[in-house]
Amino acid sequence: MYVFSTGHWISRIVSHMSGKSFQCKGIDGSKSRRGAIFTPHGNIETPFFMPIATRAAVKTLSSVDIEHLGSPILLSNTFHLMLRPGMDVMKEMGGLHAFMGWNGAILTDSGGFQVFSLANRKKITEENVVFQSPIDGSRQILNPELSMRIQRTLGSDIMMCFDDVIGLPAPHKNVEEAMERSLRWAKRCKVEFEQTREGSLNPNAQLFGIIQGGTSEDLRKRSAEGLLKIGFDGYAIGGLSVGEPFEDALHTLDVLMPLLPESKPRYFMGGAQPDQLIEYVRRGVDMFDCVLPTRNARHGHLYRFVHTDLTKRNFFEVINITNEQYKYSKTPLVEHIEGDSISTELSRFTLGYLRHLFSINEVLAYRLATMANVRFYLDLMRQIRMAIKEGQI
Amino acid sequence: MYVFSTGHWISRIVSHMSGKSFQCKGIDGSKSRRGAIFTPHGNIETPFFMPIATRAAVKTLSSVDIEHLGSPILLSNTFHLMLRPGMDVMKEMGGLHAFMGWNGAILTDSGGFQVFSLANRKKITEENVVFQSPIDGSRQILNPELSMRIQRTLGSDIMMCFDDVIGLPAPHKNVEEAMERSLRWAKRCKVEFEQTREGSLNPNAQLFGIIQGGTSEDLRKRSAEGLLKIGFDGYAIGGLSVGEPFEDALHTLDVLMPLLPESKPRYFMGGAQPDQLIEYVRRGVDMFDCVLPTRNARHGHLYRFVHTDLTKRNFFEVINITNEQYKYSKTPLVEHIEGDSISTELSRFTLGYLRHLFSINEVLAYRLATMANVRFYLDLMRQIRMAIKEGQI
Repeated sequence: MYVFSTGHWISRIVSHMSGKSFQCKGIDGSKSRRGAIFTPHGNIETPFFMPIATRAAVKTLSSVDIEHLGSPILLSNTFHLMLRPGMDVMKEMGGLHAFMGWNGAILTDSGGFQVFSLANRKKITEENVVFQSPIDGSRQILNPELSMRIQRTLGSDIMMCFDDVIGLPAPHKNVEEAMERSLRWAKRCKVEFEQTREGSLNPNAQLFGIIQGGTSEDLRKRSAEGLLKIGFDGYAIGGLSVGEPFEDALHTLDVLMPLLPESKPRYFMGGAQPDQLIEYVRRGVDMFDCVLPTRNARHGHLYRFVHTDLTKRNFFEVINITNEQYKYSKTPLVEHIEGDSISTELSRFTLGYLRHLFSINEVLAYRLATMANVRFYLDLMRQIRMAIKEGQI
Repeated sequence: MYVFSTGHWISRIVSHMSGKSFQCKGIDGSKSRRGAIFTPHGNIETPFFMPIATRAAVKTLSSVDIEHLGSPILLSNTFHLMLRPGMDVMKEMGGLHAFMGWNGAILTDSGGFQVFSLANRKKITEENVVFQSPIDGSRQILNPELSMRIQRTLGSDIMMCFDDVIGLPAPHKNVEEAMERSLRWAKRCKVEFEQTREGSLNPNAQLFGIIQGGTSEDLRKRSAEGLLKIGFDGYAIGGLSVGEPFEDALHTLDVLMPLLPESKPRYFMGGAQPDQLIEYVRRGVDMFDCVLPTRNARHGHLYRFVHTDLTKRNFFEVINITNEQYKYSKTPLVEHIEGDSISTELSRFTLGYLRHLFSINEVLAYRLATMANVRFYLDLMRQIRMAIKEGQI
């Protein structure tokens, strides 16, 4: 369930919400939107960013850390979890929330993208994808129905359709074929989703469709229209942020956004630097996942705000903490904010200390850097939501 | 400053404490003692265990983690910190407490043992130890005066004498020589310690002597007597837990303990399994450091209580979390205890989840296992203190 608006509204709306209703308001100027998604594991204000817990953990962090950092949602993955620990474990352990000790919401990717990018010897037919596990070489099968059942077993709050992802650039014909198949699979996902609702771990889960079609305007439109006909709780834009020029991503959003209903959340799948993310928000995107803050952290690359004004060019910088210049730095990892416990915790550590921890390859370095970067992205989203409210983005 | 006793006394004594006075009581039966050490960074009830933060971090853990786990003290190391980050950084950053964001007490080892075990091409003379840095091959010098000045710069609460450590077994003559040199060096340490007090970062730091002498009863006694003549704030037993039979360690303690004043803390340097630790406590030891809980954790070996009665054989077990049998285990990593925040945090994670994290080499695995094992050792010490009070150990 999703609502959006521009003003002081969420608590008012939440108190009036029940069932599948929603409320929306027109937005003047920019297409940026504030809103909220309601899940069985809490409400999430949009636009938001999801830390990535691919294999049931955000790398280096515990669920308690994510909670302290203040993220109400995280993202995990069908493909990785079906291979390890496997669905027998997931079922026995009572789903992914219980397994990883996480009380917030979970969005699960369907496995479509990972079958494309990580699986060996895959064979795609209309019915199935058959592939070799990259872990032990065992024969594995995924298809729309299995992906739905796995995501039901995980107890996901927001499930994603299983799609046929192809590498780009590719001949138009092949992109069209994959898009058309993804549409047929989306239909199968919807049917299976409905049929597996009753008695499932999380019956009020939502299902999102994924718009494909590569760089073709025509295919993208047909994909969106096809998904809208089936009807989903939200719409994701897939197949972007895969190395194409930034302008192509913006153009695709410009083409697609007017086609999507205002009443449903829009999810941009894939990485986005902070300034890119703002451009996507301006085009009406509500949800992001991004591996950049966590991956960069493990390489000692830290995001830092330079200005508080997000509309300024270069409002942020990425520093390399291993540089000599931070050797004696007493600058805290995160500025201390009164009453904010995570900033109190992280402000105890200086850039100089973090540099030392990196220089000795201490595991703690990766965790502290990850916390600082996830905190940056969550802070960025908080500031973006504020800026939308004040008509600045 | 140190006090010890057997009963309900600490708060009473603390309220009467000032300057260098102390209070002690006779103990009936076992030589086990309860007490407290008073440092500028807090009071520590004895017997206690110190997590090891060799290079300014307990591997995988932040200072906030150690604080949450409830340890009032940790141990760090002159040798490692002089090499990296180096004393220029330590001075600029305001000492080790500030550097690692740690508000509790710190005991620093002198570097004597590490020069023996880690340094390359070392040359020992009466004046100095000259050695090659294992990090960059640079020429380094340590001696009693430098070790004192480094520990003063670190702002240590409990400093250790710089001693001449030799490998065992060794000819009696060599052990004697090293012991005698350690005594002369201890005298130089005391002088330098006194002369560097004024204007230092932590003027109320204490200095402990280290008893050496290998497996020779005679040399051990002469070492203890020599140190007592110089006079220290506490006495450590060095050169044990280096592969000798457990009975030899016990015998050395039996020989040494009656020589040491009741009014000063006794520190057993080196590893001890939980059941061994109890035997040392029974012989009157007050302080322990031990790499076992943290190192074992990183290999997936977890300490777990089997009985609450510490006098029972096999009151604990060490499990290998990577074993198949934990695949579906819903047993929490740590039992939840009402009002105890760290157990609340760790009880959210099951053995099954930790096994999964180890199977994917997730960094979080090492942290959670380390927290569980440090918690075990801290719990063990709490129970030992309770058992002493109740006359059970």
